[in-house]
Amino acid sequence: MTSSVVDAEAVDLRAVRERVDAALEDFLTEKARAAACRGYPPEVVQTLRDFLAAGGKRIRALLCVVGWHAAGGHGDAAQAVRVAASLELFVAFALIHDDIMDDSASRRGRPAVHRVVSARLGEGARAERLGAGGALLVGNLALVWAQELLHTARLEPGREGSVHGWYDAMLEEVMYGQYLDVMGTGRGADDVEAALRIVRHKTAAATIERPLQLGAAVAGAGGAVMDAFTRLGLPLGEAFQLRDDLLDVFGSPDGVGAPGLSDLREGKRTVLLALGLRMADPVQRERLGRLVGRADLQEREAAEIRGILRATGARKETERMIASRYTHVLSVLDEAGFPPAADRALRGLAARATQYTS
Amino acid sequence: MTSSVVDAEAVDLRAVRERVDAALEDFLTEKARAAACRGYPPEVVQTLRDFLAAGGKRIRALLCVVGWHAAGGHGDAAQAVRVAASLELFVAFALIHDDIMDDSASRRGRPAVHRVVSARLGEGARAERLGAGGALLVGNLALVWAQELLHTARLEPGREGSVHGWYDAMLEEVMYGQYLDVMGTGRGADDVEAALRIVRHKTAAATIERPLQLGAAVAGAGGAVMDAFTRLGLPLGEAFQLRDDLLDVFGSPDGVGAPGLSDLREGKRTVLLALGLRMADPVQRERLGRLVGRADLQEREAAEIRGILRATGARKETERMIASRYTHVLSVLDEAGFPPAADRALRGLAARATQYTS
Repeated sequence: MTSSVVDAEAVDLRAVRERVDAALEDFLTEKARAAACRGYPPEVVQTLRDFLAAGGKRIRALLCVVGWHAAGGHGDAAQAVRVAASLELFVAFALIHDDIMDDSASRRGRPAVHRVVSARLGEGARAERLGAGGALLVGNLALVWAQELLHTARLEPGREGSVHGWYDAMLEEVMYGQYLDVMGTGRGADDVEAALRIVRHKTAAATIERPLQLGAAVAGAGGAVMDAFTRLGLPLGEAFQLRDDLLDVFGSPDGVGAPGLSDLREGKRTVLLALGLRMADPVQRERLGRLVGRADLQEREAAEIRGILRATGARKETERMIASRYTHVLSVLDEAGFPPAADRALRGLAARATQYTS
Repeated sequence: MTSSVVDAEAVDLRAVRERVDAALEDFLTEKARAAACRGYPPEVVQTLRDFLAAGGKRIRALLCVVGWHAAGGHGDAAQAVRVAASLELFVAFALIHDDIMDDSASRRGRPAVHRVVSARLGEGARAERLGAGGALLVGNLALVWAQELLHTARLEPGREGSVHGWYDAMLEEVMYGQYLDVMGTGRGADDVEAALRIVRHKTAAATIERPLQLGAAVAGAGGAVMDAFTRLGLPLGEAFQLRDDLLDVFGSPDGVGAPGLSDLREGKRTVLLALGLRMADPVQRERLGRLVGRADLQEREAAEIRGILRATGARKETERMIASRYTHVLSVLDEAGFPPAADRALRGLAARATQYTS
């Protein structure tokens, strides 16, 4: 089973993904069985299953298992795979809650979970409110199940404290980051540093650094590996988020990823927008202030915003920030000297996370 | 430190409460310090501190430590106290989320947390929406910190699995129970069994049975103690919730607890209401259906509902259900033969939880 995960060239990420998805499916099958026994409604587990089946890059799960390899993990990767599965349930929780808070209509090309739950209750404000409550609880169950997957991972006894420590740090960072994000939304500031700080708290650590460190902790890694992941994780996480912000507003140039309106409508305080505001002349600035954050924003107005972000150079500056971070990541990898299969996998993931893929 | 917790008569519940509150304060002080180091906003920890300081009976915490004594725990109760503190942070999470979902204005005589957070952002629908998001995240942090308190409790190695198992069972029950509660609100059913099922899932286990079992698991209890707590926990938890429902609608006869309008306004599907609907004649039933669940319900209409719940005998029947459960609890205690100090404390807690105290 495990030998398929590593080959001589690079960690086989497709095989890792399959194992992680199988671990999630096993866990949720057991939860569905338990729910049936106890008279709990089956739709909670089903909603999570549908959410996971709808896609997602599983980037945290892949990084976790690659982190395990990078830290010298060998033999059966079962524990790392289980921690990786836990991370994906955690992501499900975070996205479900995010979509409630932003009142997003869709996620991964399907209606957002709170819309799914509301639809079961009918139409109108009441169904919407109760649906948000139901979705909140589906999210909460995903979070506690993520933790259950973690502490039933049969970790080596001496490593439990370290794995839990990294996991707790991640949870705290994400929640504080979301808090800063929510409380800062729409203040319309041109504060690039504040926007980057939110990225660091909310995304950079949780998306790249902590998953790598969690995998490494499962393998019993020491401080040097953890430090390398910190040096690598922060710039890669930032680059990943900056790319994500660009994709949301501009779409991907190959046309596969369509530009969306969601970040612009909710007035998300991205680095891209902060740069746009800072680099704008008074007229452009006034237009951005007037348009960004309008819940009824239409494509014509979004096109105007895109034009301003191009004209001011904010888009180009964001690309430059991504490129410099990517270069930095490669230099950290050059120094770190991870085992070849893990090193190649990390380079591949870094390229995937920061370049144009939808 | 610990000797003060037990005396010859009964477990000293006031001393237990002080130790639990001290454990919470130590933990949150450390979290405040860490937040200051990392540039996180201080108000998150402060909001939780204020919430905990506003009161609460700490009934789960007390039951946890009494459960530890009942299962033969002796010496330093530090581990049980830490698990008890974890339970109180979990309660904070559950109440903060509940209040968001119900859009309750107040809790423990102060504005509900989402109102507190909204107020920091100003007035209007936008501040309300963002405040709800911020409060959601304060709640989420309370939940993950509850888990952190648990798995840093330095439990005996052989007992960790059992403690985690009970804790996970509790989290799952509460969340499914809340889900059933949310999705069932306002369907206006006279289904007494469905209402009791929600009580069982949402309250009975989490309030009484699981805290007792968690304390017992910390002490390494075997199946007999756990079974006794199941036999005792379900009726006591139901009685506790039935009393709570009565207090919410009727207040306490000594006038200390004022009757509220919140359950009636949100149309909470309580056993009391289900009994009222079932025992009502067609005219009374029509009035209940028209009045209960109205968000703008006034005191005059609440008085009419109270009158119907009295006239139909629903109030009396609820009292009868409480009394029969209380009697059953005492008979379980008679059989169980717990150590005297724990037995007395359990009898005291059972009386407190089911009788008129606000």
